[in-house]
Amino acid sequence: MKRIVIVGLGLIGGSLAAALQGFEDYTVTGVDTDPEVRRFAIENGIADEVTDDTPSALRQADVVFLCMHPDGILEALEAYQNTFKSGTLVTDVGGVKTAVMEKAACLPETVDFIGAHPMAGKERGGIQNAGANLFCGAHYIMTPGPASTSEHIALLERMAEYMGFRDVVKTTPEHHDAIIAYTSQAMHIMAVSICDDPFMFDCIGFEGGSFRDCTRVAALEPDLWTQLFSLNAPALTETLERFETHLRAYREVIASGDREKLMGMLQSSSERKRRMNLEHRRGDDLYGPAEKR
Amino acid sequence: MKRIVIVGLGLIGGSLAAALQGFEDYTVTGVDTDPEVRRFAIENGIADEVTDDTPSALRQADVVFLCMHPDGILEALEAYQNTFKSGTLVTDVGGVKTAVMEKAACLPETVDFIGAHPMAGKERGGIQNAGANLFCGAHYIMTPGPASTSEHIALLERMAEYMGFRDVVKTTPEHHDAIIAYTSQAMHIMAVSICDDPFMFDCIGFEGGSFRDCTRVAALEPDLWTQLFSLNAPALTETLERFETHLRAYREVIASGDREKLMGMLQSSSERKRRMNLEHRRGDDLYGPAEKR
Repeated sequence: MKRIVIVGLGLIGGSLAAALQGFEDYTVTGVDTDPEVRRFAIENGIADEVTDDTPSALRQADVVFLCMHPDGILEALEAYQNTFKSGTLVTDVGGVKTAVMEKAACLPETVDFIGAHPMAGKERGGIQNAGANLFCGAHYIMTPGPASTSEHIALLERMAEYMGFRDVVKTTPEHHDAIIAYTSQAMHIMAVSICDDPFMFDCIGFEGGSFRDCTRVAALEPDLWTQLFSLNAPALTETLERFETHLRAYREVIASGDREKLMGMLQSSSERKRRMNLEHRRGDDLYGPAEKR
Repeated sequence: MKRIVIVGLGLIGGSLAAALQGFEDYTVTGVDTDPEVRRFAIENGIADEVTDDTPSALRQADVVFLCMHPDGILEALEAYQNTFKSGTLVTDVGGVKTAVMEKAACLPETVDFIGAHPMAGKERGGIQNAGANLFCGAHYIMTPGPASTSEHIALLERMAEYMGFRDVVKTTPEHHDAIIAYTSQAMHIMAVSICDDPFMFDCIGFEGGSFRDCTRVAALEPDLWTQLFSLNAPALTETLERFETHLRAYREVIASGDREKLMGMLQSSSERKRRMNLEHRRGDDLYGPAEKR
C-alpha cells in the first residue's frame, strides 16, 4: 500500500480525505493538531489513520496534500522542505498559486511539487462540514512545476476524476491568479461591499433572489480571505479597478437619462452572459458534470 | 361571480392568472394582444377566458392587474383612466412605484389604485415560463394610495396569501424605490458590470459558485430593465455611488498591504451578512415561507 498524507483536516482537507477513500492502492493518513478533529475523522471514516506528528507522517508519505490556509502552506513548505522523502509528490489546495509556487522552489529537486486549487467550498468550514461529494462538478486547477513528471500529473488527474471533479485545467500560476482575481476574489469583494451598505438592515422584507445570490459568499472566513486577497493584491486591485470602471459607466448613463445608450449596454452585457451560460452548458454536454476534461 | 382582469399575460401576468384560479368567487379574464399567448392561456387553464379587447374587459372588471412593463403600465393608466367602472380595485406589478403612483393620480376618485410589486421573476419571461408557484416564498410589496379602502387592502392581502407569497409588506412608493434600488436594481447593475470584463470568456474552466451566483441575473431583458433603471434613476445612482465607495475602500486597503485593517473590514462585513441571514431565517421561523406576514 502507498500512503496519501493530508495535512490539515478542515473543510477541504477533510473532504479530500473522504473522497480519496478507496483510491487505487493508497491509504489516507490525516494530520491535525486538534484531537477533536482527529477523533471526528476516525469516527466518521474520513481517514484510515490520524496523527499530530507532521514530520513523521511526511517522511512516510508518497503523496502529500497541504490543506492549510495559504500562510500555513507557505510556512509548511519552508519548515518541512527537507522532511519529504525522495520521489514524493507534494501538492496543495491554496486559492493563490504564484506565492505558493515561488515558495515551493525551496524544495529539493527530488520532490515534485504540483500546485493545485480545487474550486469548491462552503460557507461553513471545518471537518464537520466536510464530505466526499464536495468536489462533484467542480473544476480542479493544476499548476505543475518546471520539473513535474508526467506520472505525477497523471496520478493527480486520476485522483481528481475519482473524487468527482468536473474537469482538470492545467495552467501557469500567474494566469491562475489573474483569472481567479476576477472569477472568485472580486465576487467576494463585491459581496462584502454590498453588505457594507448602511441601509442593508432596512431592506429586510424586500430581498429578492438577486440580493441573496449576490451576497451569499459575504459570510466568509475573514482570516482565510485576508490571506488570499493579500497574496494576490496586484491582480486583484487591477481587476477591481476594471470593475469600478464598468460600474461607473452604468451609473453615468443612467444619470444622463440616455435610454437608448443604456439599452445598448444592457443588450451587450446580457448577450455576453447568455453566451457564457451556453459555453458552460456546452461543457456539461461534452464532459458531464463529474467527468475529467 | 366577480371578475379579475389581468392585462398582459407574460411571465408575471400569466403566473398571477394561474395562481388566482379558484380564488374565492372570482373568475380570471386574461387580456393579451398576441393570439398565440391567448391560446396558450386557455389550453393550459391559466385563465377562464381571454380577449384582446382591453376597454371592454376593463369595463367589466372588479379587480384589475396591470402586468405590462413599467412604460406600458404608465400608458395604460393614461389611456384607460375613464374606462374602469366605479369601485374597481386597480393594481399593478411594476418594479418601480413612485412613477406609477404619480401617474395613477389621474384616475377618478371612484377607482382605488393600490401599487404593488410581487418580488419574483425568472431569467426567461413569457407565458411559457409562467406558473402558479412562481410566488411561493416571495415578498409582496404594496403601496396603497391616500384613499385606498381597507376592504381593498384586505382583498389584496388575501389574494397574496392564496398565491403563496411569504408576506405582504406595506410601504410608501419612495421608500420602496430607495430600497429596491439597493436590493434588486444595483444587484443587476453589478451582474452586468461583471460580464463587461474583457477577460470573461478566458475564465471558462475557472468559475466557482461565487461567479455563477453573482452573475446569474445578468441574462436580463434589456428593454424591461432599461425602463426600471430609468424610472428610478435618482435612487439608483445614489445607491451605486455608495457601493462604489465601499468597493474602493476594499481596493485601497488591499493595495496598501495593511492586513490588519483588511481583516477588520472583512470581520465587520461578514458579521453583517451573517446577521442578515439570521434575520431572514427568523422570518421563516415566525411566518413560514408561504404565510402572510
